Amino acid sequence: ARIVTLPGDGVGPEVTAAAVAVLQAVATHYEHAFSFDQHLAGGAAIDATGEPLPAATLTACQAADAVLLGAVGGPKWSDPNAKVRPEQGLLALRAGLGVYANLRPLTVHPALAALSPLKDEKLKDVDVLFVRELTGGAYFGAKTRGVDYATDECRYTEAEIERVTRRAFELARGRRRHVTSVDKANVLETSRLWHRTVARVAADYPDVTLEHQLVDSMAMLLLTRPGSYDVVVTENLFGDILTDEAAALAGSLGLLPSASLGEGSNGLYEPIHGSAPDIAGKGVANPVGAMLSTALLLRHSLQLEAEAQAVEAAVDHVLQHGPRTRDLGGHASTADVRDAVLAALE
Amino acid sequence: ARIVTLPGDGVGPEVTAAAVAVLQAVATHYEHAFSFDQHLAGGAAIDATGEPLPAATLTACQAADAVLLGAVGGPKWSDPNAKVRPEQGLLALRAGLGVYANLRPLTVHPALAALSPLKDEKLKDVDVLFVRELTGGAYFGAKTRGVDYATDECRYTEAEIERVTRRAFELARGRRRHVTSVDKANVLETSRLWHRTVARVAADYPDVTLEHQLVDSMAMLLLTRPGSYDVVVTENLFGDILTDEAAALAGSLGLLPSASLGEGSNGLYEPIHGSAPDIAGKGVANPVGAMLSTALLLRHSLQLEAEAQAVEAAVDHVLQHGPRTRDLGGHASTADVRDAVLAALE
Ligand SMILES: CC(C)[C@H](C(=O)O)[C@@H](O)C(=O)O
Ligand SMILES: CC(C)[C@H](C(=O)O)[C@@H](O)C(=O)O
Repeated sequence: ARIVTLPGDGVGPEVTAAAVAVLQAVATHYEHAFSFDQHLAGGAAIDATGEPLPAATLTACQAADAVLLGAVGGPKWSDPNAKVRPEQGLLALRAGLGVYANLRPLTVHPALAALSPLKDEKLKDVDVLFVRELTGGAYFGAKTRGVDYATDECRYTEAEIERVTRRAFELARGRRRHVTSVDKANVLETSRLWHRTVARVAADYPDVTLEHQLVDSMAMLLLTRPGSYDVVVTENLFGDILTDEAAALAGSLGLLPSASLGEGSNGLYEPIHGSAPDIAGKGVANPVGAMLSTALLLRHSLQLEAEAQAVEAAVDHVLQHGPRTRDLGGHASTADVRDAVLAALE
Repeated sequence: ARIVTLPGDGVGPEVTAAAVAVLQAVATHYEHAFSFDQHLAGGAAIDATGEPLPAATLTACQAADAVLLGAVGGPKWSDPNAKVRPEQGLLALRAGLGVYANLRPLTVHPALAALSPLKDEKLKDVDVLFVRELTGGAYFGAKTRGVDYATDECRYTEAEIERVTRRAFELARGRRRHVTSVDKANVLETSRLWHRTVARVAADYPDVTLEHQLVDSMAMLLLTRPGSYDVVVTENLFGDILTDEAAALAGSLGLLPSASLGEGSNGLYEPIHGSAPDIAGKGVANPVGAMLSTALLLRHSLQLEAEAQAVEAAVDHVLQHGPRTRDLGGHASTADVRDAVLAALE
């Protein structure tokens, strides 16, 4: 399998290296041939080429079996008035790969419950799979900037809503058969289309229960009864906000993986944390989110379920017994955690 | 002072009645003359007149010194395909009164910390004043609905951003002199205008510290370090989501008040909870959010600071010693809580 890596910015290269080490160990152990092809993206690409997503990078990603991304962005490139920004590269990559469904699983490891801002009793049974629409909405709508005003258009077609909804319902069938669709149908026209379309698609999945929530209520319910949700499907911007809120429950942003999928088996895999410029280059970033992203890569792009579970079990073992990086209250380096996961994989 | 009441739907009439009782007690005790003029709004108005905000209601509200609202909406009127919805009345009222700054204070009463989903140590020092832009953004932008697509436009002018920002900075001067501005400037054009405008206005308030956060990070930071925020200013939709998230920290949505202010002294006051159809008509709704809204009304529209503080102290006393409604783990009725607050006001 050909895997393109995009280490990106900040701690991106550090966590990506640890994730690649995991994939290499899987290749050896299970006798697979994985090739790794590294490309530029984000701020690193701007510095080298002037563009956040050089054509060579997109072409390589499109030809790959899967793409593993570290993180993009950082203070160096974050002037909101700048013409070229690292995030544009990420958005162009998502669009260029057609990965419209962003999967963000949230579980809270019992050994890390003490680190969560939520009380223990709230964390019981938390096991949510967010399915965020990733290539539509205000992220990709028309924008204007006048002398003294600005606009962003949020636009959704029924087809865009339908495909991500079907993905959510399919995934619910492998889980607890419950889908919560989040919108703001009492105010937004796109949300009313979202609401109607999800309700229509749901009729094809009579074995799955559908519930609608307004985005403001959902922001609250994620705190008051997070254990009641199974699959949560929502549009791009609401998904951005709700998944970061949910990530806080896990105890550290450094823990959570994501998979972005389209029609084919190619996919984009990245930890949900950002480039963390404050700790970049120090070798202390938590590689768990990136490592768990490789499990999703093995599962969703390479159809290697046993290997995916082996990686998850190894990470689980390390979260239970240590070593732990600073964000988890430990003193370990990125390399320490990598080595412990590799040892657990044996 | 002439106060218009809009009891609205669900538990709205019950909590509004309790809030009016508080204002009547204040009038008697401090020898003020308050007149109360009740009008239709929301679903109740749709049922009676076909319109969610009859012209007579808006005219009366515009002529009043302050407006006290209960809640609008409910399952009876929540078909997303309906032509007329209660929420339209609320939006038209906000626009018609020109109340562009929605103040939502969040504090966590020590006696209620056990009810919060957050751990005790996270709740220490939580005292945030959200200032949500209320008459712009996607709520009021152009909407289209085509055969198979829909759009919502988010539009902001510099002037709209500037006035709500100035309000936030002025309020910060009476508090801890710290403002956090929330946007999504790495993706949205309106957020870049927001970011630039807030930064420019901040130069006029050198005694106040300004910090920018992205909305997704902020959704997380509200959980990981809620005690670090003083005034948080943001656009309409982000404010809707973040303030509901924040409200969950207080232990019950039923506790929190809001004030919506424009250029004059007239204002719109309402608890942040909704119409709670499940408990409507049972006499068990928590009237605290509505009662605390009267304190904001006394403070911001009537310039009666001592009276506002007396109401807050009375509510505080009852939250400490009971009685408590069901959402707070008690068995008291709305009337029990009302009577206890009235007694504490003596
Ligand atoms: C970096 C940014 C553009 C991105 C987004 O908003 O989608 C990030 O927050 C995410 O959630 O992956
Ligand atoms: C009822 C609804 C239109 C309203 C809003 O979204 O503004 C409510 O959620 C609020 O926050 O006051």
